[in-house]
Amino acid sequence: MVRVPGVFDAERVAVVGATEREGSVGAAVMENLLEDFGGEIRPVNPGADRVFGLPCVDDIAETDADLAVIVVPPTVALDVVESAGQAGIENLVVITAGFGEAGGEGATRERKLQELAETYDLNLVGPNCLGVVSTPSGLNATFGPRNALSGRMSFMSQSGALVTAILEWAGDRGHGFKDVVSLGNKAVLDETDFVETWGEDPDTDVVLGYLEGIENGTEFVETAREVTRETPVVVLKSGRTEAGAQAASSHTGAIAGSEAAYEAGLEKAGVIRADSTEELFDFGAMLAGGRLPTADGVAVVTNAGGPGVIATDAIGDSELELATFEDETRRTLQESLPPTANVYNPVDVIGDAPAERFGDALDVVLSDPGVGAAVVIACPSAVLSFDRLAQTLVEARKREDVPIAVCLMGGASVEGPSETLSDVETPTYFDPTRAVRSLAALERYRTIRKRRYEPPASFDVDRDAARSVLERVKSQGDNRLGIEAMELLDAYGIQTPEGDIVDSPGEAKELAERIGGDVVMKVVSPDILHKTDIGGVEVGVPLRDVEDTYEALVSRARNYRPDARLLGVQVQELIDLDDSVETIVGMNRDPQFGPLVLFGLGGVFVEVLEDTTVRIAPLSEAEAAGMLEDIDSTPLLRGARGREPVDEAGIVETIQRLSQLVVDFPAIVELDINPLVATADGVVAVDIRLTVDHETL
Amino acid sequence: MVRVPGVFDAERVAVVGATEREGSVGAAVMENLLEDFGGEIRPVNPGADRVFGLPCVDDIAETDADLAVIVVPPTVALDVVESAGQAGIENLVVITAGFGEAGGEGATRERKLQELAETYDLNLVGPNCLGVVSTPSGLNATFGPRNALSGRMSFMSQSGALVTAILEWAGDRGHGFKDVVSLGNKAVLDETDFVETWGEDPDTDVVLGYLEGIENGTEFVETAREVTRETPVVVLKSGRTEAGAQAASSHTGAIAGSEAAYEAGLEKAGVIRADSTEELFDFGAMLAGGRLPTADGVAVVTNAGGPGVIATDAIGDSELELATFEDETRRTLQESLPPTANVYNPVDVIGDAPAERFGDALDVVLSDPGVGAAVVIACPSAVLSFDRLAQTLVEARKREDVPIAVCLMGGASVEGPSETLSDVETPTYFDPTRAVRSLAALERYRTIRKRRYEPPASFDVDRDAARSVLERVKSQGDNRLGIEAMELLDAYGIQTPEGDIVDSPGEAKELAERIGGDVVMKVVSPDILHKTDIGGVEVGVPLRDVEDTYEALVSRARNYRPDARLLGVQVQELIDLDDSVETIVGMNRDPQFGPLVLFGLGGVFVEVLEDTTVRIAPLSEAEAAGMLEDIDSTPLLRGARGREPVDEAGIVETIQRLSQLVVDFPAIVELDINPLVATADGVVAVDIRLTVDHETL
Repeated sequence: MVRVPGVFDAERVAVVGATEREGSVGAAVMENLLEDFGGEIRPVNPGADRVFGLPCVDDIAETDADLAVIVVPPTVALDVVESAGQAGIENLVVITAGFGEAGGEGATRERKLQELAETYDLNLVGPNCLGVVSTPSGLNATFGPRNALSGRMSFMSQSGALVTAILEWAGDRGHGFKDVVSLGNKAVLDETDFVETWGEDPDTDVVLGYLEGIENGTEFVETAREVTRETPVVVLKSGRTEAGAQAASSHTGAIAGSEAAYEAGLEKAGVIRADSTEELFDFGAMLAGGRLPTADGVAVVTNAGGPGVIATDAIGDSELELATFEDETRRTLQESLPPTANVYNPVDVIGDAPAERFGDALDVVLSDPGVGAAVVIACPSAVLSFDRLAQTLVEARKREDVPIAVCLMGGASVEGPSETLSDVETPTYFDPTRAVRSLAALERYRTIRKRRYEPPASFDVDRDAARSVLERVKSQGDNRLGIEAMELLDAYGIQTPEGDIVDSPGEAKELAERIGGDVVMKVVSPDILHKTDIGGVEVGVPLRDVEDTYEALVSRARNYRPDARLLGVQVQELIDLDDSVETIVGMNRDPQFGPLVLFGLGGVFVEVLEDTTVRIAPLSEAEAAGMLEDIDSTPLLRGARGREPVDEAGIVETIQRLSQLVVDFPAIVELDINPLVATADGVVAVDIRLTVDHETL
Repeated sequence: MVRVPGVFDAERVAVVGATEREGSVGAAVMENLLEDFGGEIRPVNPGADRVFGLPCVDDIAETDADLAVIVVPPTVALDVVESAGQAGIENLVVITAGFGEAGGEGATRERKLQELAETYDLNLVGPNCLGVVSTPSGLNATFGPRNALSGRMSFMSQSGALVTAILEWAGDRGHGFKDVVSLGNKAVLDETDFVETWGEDPDTDVVLGYLEGIENGTEFVETAREVTRETPVVVLKSGRTEAGAQAASSHTGAIAGSEAAYEAGLEKAGVIRADSTEELFDFGAMLAGGRLPTADGVAVVTNAGGPGVIATDAIGDSELELATFEDETRRTLQESLPPTANVYNPVDVIGDAPAERFGDALDVVLSDPGVGAAVVIACPSAVLSFDRLAQTLVEARKREDVPIAVCLMGGASVEGPSETLSDVETPTYFDPTRAVRSLAALERYRTIRKRRYEPPASFDVDRDAARSVLERVKSQGDNRLGIEAMELLDAYGIQTPEGDIVDSPGEAKELAERIGGDVVMKVVSPDILHKTDIGGVEVGVPLRDVEDTYEALVSRARNYRPDARLLGVQVQELIDLDDSVETIVGMNRDPQFGPLVLFGLGGVFVEVLEDTTVRIAPLSEAEAAGMLEDIDSTPLLRGARGREPVDEAGIVETIQRLSQLVVDFPAIVELDINPLVATADGVVAVDIRLTVDHETL
C-alpha cells in the first residue's frame, strides 16, 4: 500500500537536527519551512531549547509530528529513524548523506535503514536527498531555494542539485509545481511510488521525472501503464549513451540497465521521453494545460511568413500534421483578412495585423473540423500590441478547447504578455520550432491515450510438454541448446518444419520417405555447437542418399570429437526459401525489465543495419503487431519489389506465442528463432538456439 | 565585382521618402538613423523643407549621399533608383514593397529594377525588405527596432519580420552583431554577395543566415566553400520538409529546390546547418568566440552529478567525445579535490565547491593533452557565488585557448554572471544538452577547416568518342537511352562487361565465341524500354544456343511492336554475381545546384531503405570516397558477414569518372549505372539508363 501522500500532506513537520547555525542544512530547512508553511513546525535538537523562536524537544518521539525531516549526521540517523518508527511517525524525509552512495559502511547503514522502514512500515524519502516541496500547504522541507511557484506539474528528480536549479529557473519561466521530491538513494520510496501517488492526485496534471535508473522496471511499467491512461508522465532518463551510462553508474553507484530495455520499458509504460532539461519542462508546461489535440490537423496563424515556414518544417518533422483547410474556412478567411494575406495554412495575417486580426483568424481556423490544435506566431510590429494579443489569446482559450502553442517573438516586450498567458496554463516560446515540438508532445500523449489496453492473448499450449523438454535438458546437464529443443516450439504451437530426431540410418530413411522430397539432415549433439563448420549439416539430401548421409554425419561428428554425446540425426523437411523472407524472433532477459522480445529481418538487416526492435513481454496482439511497424525493413514483408506479401499475422502470432513461452518459463534466459521463415502461406521456425538457467526451473 | 561593403560602410545616408508622419516607414527609418548613426543623414522629400530638423531636398540627385534608403511608394521607386544611378550613388536599400512578391505589375517592376541596377552597376538590397544595420557606425537603416548590440556575428535574413524579432530578442541574450541585412526579394544582391562580403570582413567572426531559398546554388557553393575555410557560416534553411517547402514557395513566390540538393550544396559549401532559430544563434554565439577545440576530447567539470550525466549523454549523441584523462591528470585532481569528488570525466567537484575549486579543476583538466574543449556546469549552492565563478571563468579564458561552454543552472541569480561571460564571447546556457550541442557546432566547424580542398581528378578520357555517341543518339531523335549507350562509359574509362551490339546471328556467335563462356543477350531498340517484360533478355546463353536466341529475341521484339526500330542484339559477358555487391551510381541535374551524383547499394537498399547519398559534381577523390561513408550499408562493401571486401577504390574512381562525364556534357540530364557490380577484383557497369537533352548538346 502506498501512502506517499502523507509526505506531501503533512500538517506537523518535525525537523530533527534543527539549528540556527548559519550555513547549516538544519538552518536552511528551518528557514524554508518558516517561510510559507501553513502547518506547524517542531524543531528537534537535544542541544537547544528554542530554534528560530520555536520550542525545541530532545527526541522525535516527544513530538506529535506526522512528518519527520532528518538532517542529523549519518551515525545517528538510524537511531532517529527507529525512534520515529516507534513513535508511530510514518513519513520521513532523510536528507542526511553517507549511505549507499558512500559505499562500505554507508552501504551497511542503508541496508539497516531499509530494514527499519520494513519493520515500522515507513514512507521514507531519501536518504541523501534535498527534501520535498508541496506548494498547496507551502511545505518546503528542503535545504534548497526558498520558493516554488504553485502549479499543476509534479516533479521527481534523482539529482538534488537539479531540483535546486530547476526551482530557481522555473519560477522565472512561469512554470509552477504541485509537489517536488528529490529521490536521493531511493532506499525505500522510488519513482514507482511517486508515479502512483501523483496518478491519483487530482491536483497533479502532469508528472515529470529526471531519472538515472529505475529500481524495479517491471513494477514501474505496470504502475505507469495504468497512470498514463489518465495522467501524462514525461521522463528525462539520463545515461542513455554508453558514456552517459558509465557516468551515471560512477555517480549513483548503481549499474545502469541497457538503453534498449529502458526504451522498451518506457514505451510500454506510456511514458513520454524528453531529450533535455528544457524539453522536459517544455513538454510539462504544455501538458499541464490539460488539453489534447481534438483532430489530426494543426493550424498555424502568423504575422510573418518566415517563422510560419519554420513552424511548418517543425510540424513536418514531428508526429503532427499541417491541417488542410476546408473551402469554407478559406472563404471565411478571405472575407475577414486583407487581400494580400495567405488564407492557406500557414495563415499569414501579414505584418500590419493588430491583435484582433489574429483573434479573428484563429476563430475561423479553429472552427474547421480538421483542425485540432493551433500555433500562433507573432513578430513585433508597429501595430501589434503583445499585451492585447495575450488578452485575445486568453479569451480564445476560454472559448475553445484545443491546445494553442504561442510564439511571442520578441525580447523584454513579451515578458508581461508571457506571464498573462502562463497564468492560464499557456506556455509561450520565442522559437517556433520549440513551440511545435512541445505541441507534438501533446500529440504523442494523445496517441498513448488512444492505445488499446488489451490483455496478452493466452494460446492453448502444451505447457507440460515444454516443461519436459526443459527437464530433459536439465537432466543432461546442458544449458545451451539448439535444434534438439525444437519440440519446445511445437509445444507452444509455433510452426516448425516437419521432421524429428532419429538414431539409425533406417529410421532416417523411413522419416524422409514420410516427409517426401529432399530433406535437411543435421547431426544432433549438445557438444557440437557449430555444426556447419564440421560438415554436420547437409541440405537438400535426396531420398536415395539419406542412409549414407546419416553415416557420414555421424562419422564426421565422431572424427571431430570422439567423446561428443550424439543424440542422433535430425531429418527435416526442406523449406523452400524462394519467395520467402527470413526473420528473427528472439528473447533475452533484462535484470530490470524482464523478458525483452526482439524482432527483425534476418541476415544483413540484423547484422549490418541493426534494424531490430525490442518490446517487453508479455505482449498483446497490438504490441506484437506494433513491432512490425517499428523497423525500416518491414516493406519487404509487404510485397516490396514485386514480391507476394508474407503472412504477417503468422509472424505476429509467433511473437505472441514466444512471449507466452518465455513468461511461462523464467528458466529460459535467452532464445532465438533464427530464421523464422515467412512466406505468403505462413511462417516456420527453421532453427532455434536457447540458453536455460536450470536453477530457475 | 562585389562592392557590398559600401552598403554597410556608408558615411552619408539619404532617406528618400523621409517624413515625420507618425507610424510611417519613412519616420521610423529617420528615427532609427537619428538614434546612433555616426555619419550624416540627408532626408529627401519634395513635400518638406526640413525633416526632424534636418534640411530636406527634393531629389536624391541633389545629395552627396553614398547610400540611398528608399521608402517611397512602388510606383515612384523606379524613378528614384534611376535618379540615384545617374547621380552616381551606387549603394541602395529599397525597403519599398510591391515588386516581385506581389506578382503581375510588381514582377514587371522588379525586372525593371534589375535592369536599372545592371545599367548603373548598383549595389541594391531588397526590394521589399526591412533594411540594413551596421553597428560600428551606428547605422540602423531599418524601420524595425531601434538598437542592436554590437558584436562579431553578421546576419542575413530572407524574412524581415525575423530580423525584427531577432534584434529584440538577441539583445537580452547578449548576442551582438556587426552587420545585419534583410534580404527582401534579392532582386540584385543575394546571399552569395553577403557571404563573400562578410568572408572578407575582419570584424565578422561568423556569418548567420535565415534562408528560404538560394538564388544561384552553384555560385553560392563556390563562394561559400572559399569563405568557410576561414569564417564559419551557419544557415537555418527553411522549407526543408514537403509542407515547409510548399509554405515557403507560397510565401516567397519562388519555387523551392529539392531538400536533397540543398543538403548536398550546403555540405559541399562547408555551411553548418541549424535546425531552429535558437540553434542558429546558439551556434553563432559559440562560433563568435573565435575558438575551436584543440584536441578531440571534451572535459566536463560540474558541481552536480546529474547534470554531468546529462551533458555526457549529449556528448555521446554528438560528434564530440568525452575525454579519457591521463593518469597524471587524475592524480593531480585527486590531490586538489575533496576525497568524495569524482576525478574521472565528468569531474564532479561536488556540491560544496566554491568558484575557486571549479577554476582549479578546470586548470588541471585543460592541461591534459587529450582535452580540447570543456563544459562547465554549475548548480546553485549555498557556497557557490555565480559572480565569482564567472570571474574565474573569464580568467581561465584569458589563460587558455580552448572553447568553454558554460551552464549556469539558475534563474535570476545568473543574469549578471551571464553578462560578464557574454562580454568575453562566452555564451552561457541553463540546459547542459543545449550547451553541448552548441559546442558540437565548433567541432563540426573544426572538421570543415580540416577538409582537404583538392581539385577534382581529371582522368584521361575519350571525350570525342562520348560526344559521337550522344550525337548519334541525337541524329536518331531519341532522348532516353539504355544499353546502346554503354560506349559512353567505355569512353570515360568506366569498366563495362565485354560485349557489343551485333546485327546477325552469325556475328552474335562469333562474338560469343570470343567472349567465352555463357553470355547475356538483349534486344536493342530505342522503342522497347522494358525489355525483360517482352522476353527481350536472355541470361546465361550457352554458345550452341546463341544463333537461335538471336532469332528468338528479334522475333519477340517484332511481335511486340512491328514498327519498333531494332538496332540489333547486345551480346555481353555474363558477370558472376556470386560474391559481388550491386551498387548504383546515378546523376540528375538540380536547377539550382547542377549535377547531383547519387550513390547507394542496389535493390532493397535503394528501393526500400532509401539508403543513398547525393553530392554535387564535380567531385574530388575525397568527396567521392566520402559518399561511401555516408550510407548505412557500407559494411557490406567491407567484408561484413564473412565476405571478401570489394574494390572500394574502383567504386570511388567510377563515381569520379561519372562526375567528369556529366560535367563535360550538360546534355546528359539523367544517368543511372544500375547495377555497378563490385567484387574483390574490380567493378563493372552492367546496365545504364540515361536521358539526354539534345538542345544542350
